[in-house]
Amino acid sequence: MSPEKIVVIADFSVTPIGLGTTSIGKQIATTINAIKEVKGIKYEVTPMGTVLEAEKLETILEAVKVAHEALFKAGIKRVESHLRIDDRRDKPRTMEDKVKTIKEYMKK
Amino acid sequence: MSPEKIVVIADFSVTPIGLGTTSIGKQIATTINAIKEVKGIKYEVTPMGTVLEAEKLETILEAVKVAHEALFKAGIKRVESHLRIDDRRDKPRTMEDKVKTIKEYMKK
Amino acid sequence: MSPEKIVVIADFSVTPIGLGTTSIGKQIATTINAIKEVKGIKYEVTPMGTVLEAEKLETILEAVKVAHEALFKAGIKRVESHLRIDDRRDKPRTMEDKVKTIKEYMKK
Amino acid sequence: MSPEKIVVIADFSVTPIGLGTTSIGKQIATTINAIKEVKGIKYEVTPMGTVLEAEKLETILEAVKVAHEALFKAGIKRVESHLRIDDRRDKPRTMEDKVKTIKEYMKK
Repeated sequence: MSPEKIVVIADFSVTPIGLGTTSIGKQIATTINAIKEVKGIKYEVTPMGTVLEAEKLETILEAVKVAHEALFKAGIKRVESHLRIDDRRDKPRTMEDKVKTIKEYMKK
Repeated sequence: MSPEKIVVIADFSVTPIGLGTTSIGKQIATTINAIKEVKGIKYEVTPMGTVLEAEKLETILEAVKVAHEALFKAGIKRVESHLRIDDRRDKPRTMEDKVKTIKEYMKK
Repeated sequence: MSPEKIVVIADFSVTPIGLGTTSIGKQIATTINAIKEVKGIKYEVTPMGTVLEAEKLETILEAVKVAHEALFKAGIKRVESHLRIDDRRDKPRTMEDKVKTIKEYMKK
Repeated sequence: MSPEKIVVIADFSVTPIGLGTTSIGKQIATTINAIKEVKGIKYEVTPMGTVLEAEKLETILEAVKVAHEALFKAGIKRVESHLRIDDRRDKPRTMEDKVKTIKEYMKK
């Protein structure tokens, strides 16, 4: 097992505007397919967005960029997105750690 | 299996202000322990927050309320939180469905 | 001048889903008109949302509720919204103070 | 008056973690001072964050980057931030327009 690294963890969600209520899932899949090609990114799909992890903040921001561009390329005219970043530089960790830590505290 | 229902799905994250960088996990656990006592709430912990599901929007908002109050009761003086709500009333679904739908589209 | 009070300040934005790209402003106006009827709420429209101020967290959450309901009443089938709350209970303040404080620090 | 342009408008807020409840305003001022040096950015301070406007999405993302780096340079060890983006490519506009449009609809 490689040692843990200092990483930036983020939650990203994107809403294509101008579609009906039901065709959004397909567009979101398009954005995640674009994001997973970004070098150095790890991702996990949640019911409300995609959790991203990378060693550099720039990689997270690049993921936002490619997600927007993928939607415009697919013909969407307006894109809203939300990015929430947790950028911690004093301690190595992973996105799995964060959930594990909270679940352990919940039992105490 | 019970039939699916119209539900509100949300992502909630909370940050106690005025602590060091490392003691936040414990406080977040406190909020989730409070939230899970809210009648009618379902929850799932993610690396960046907690996904909430309920039949009524009021139940989601009640979860926000109890989370803040749990932190003030624990001695925190300032609480920041983020709530992102997906309130869809034309189609039954669950939070698990949302992930499944996106993953299926990702393969196409 | 009345003394300042302990208040909760929040930023709320709402996106009706299922419309075109251009008819959103009207729907947002509908939500703000509903919010301003909530007893005890103060509001300020910004380019990206509405800043809310109230003495109680419940009042902020009630504003979210009435905004969603106003859109469903107007025929929208799916509503996404985002609420960011700053709930500080150790110091009286107003939303105007927050901007003033930051602008003063910017000059130092 | 120059003609309006296609722009990206965003709302950015940042929370330095590991400080007390009262020293946050100074740190936020530090981030805005860093952001305003980004070429091509326009900004407006609100009670809950900073509204950003730029012709390119990359400029908005660069502002996020410099804000985080300014806090780490000031000794902060953990930074949380939130970015909400409205990226519309079918119509020229400005951040002032958005508020004006909503206020006009509110009167109807």
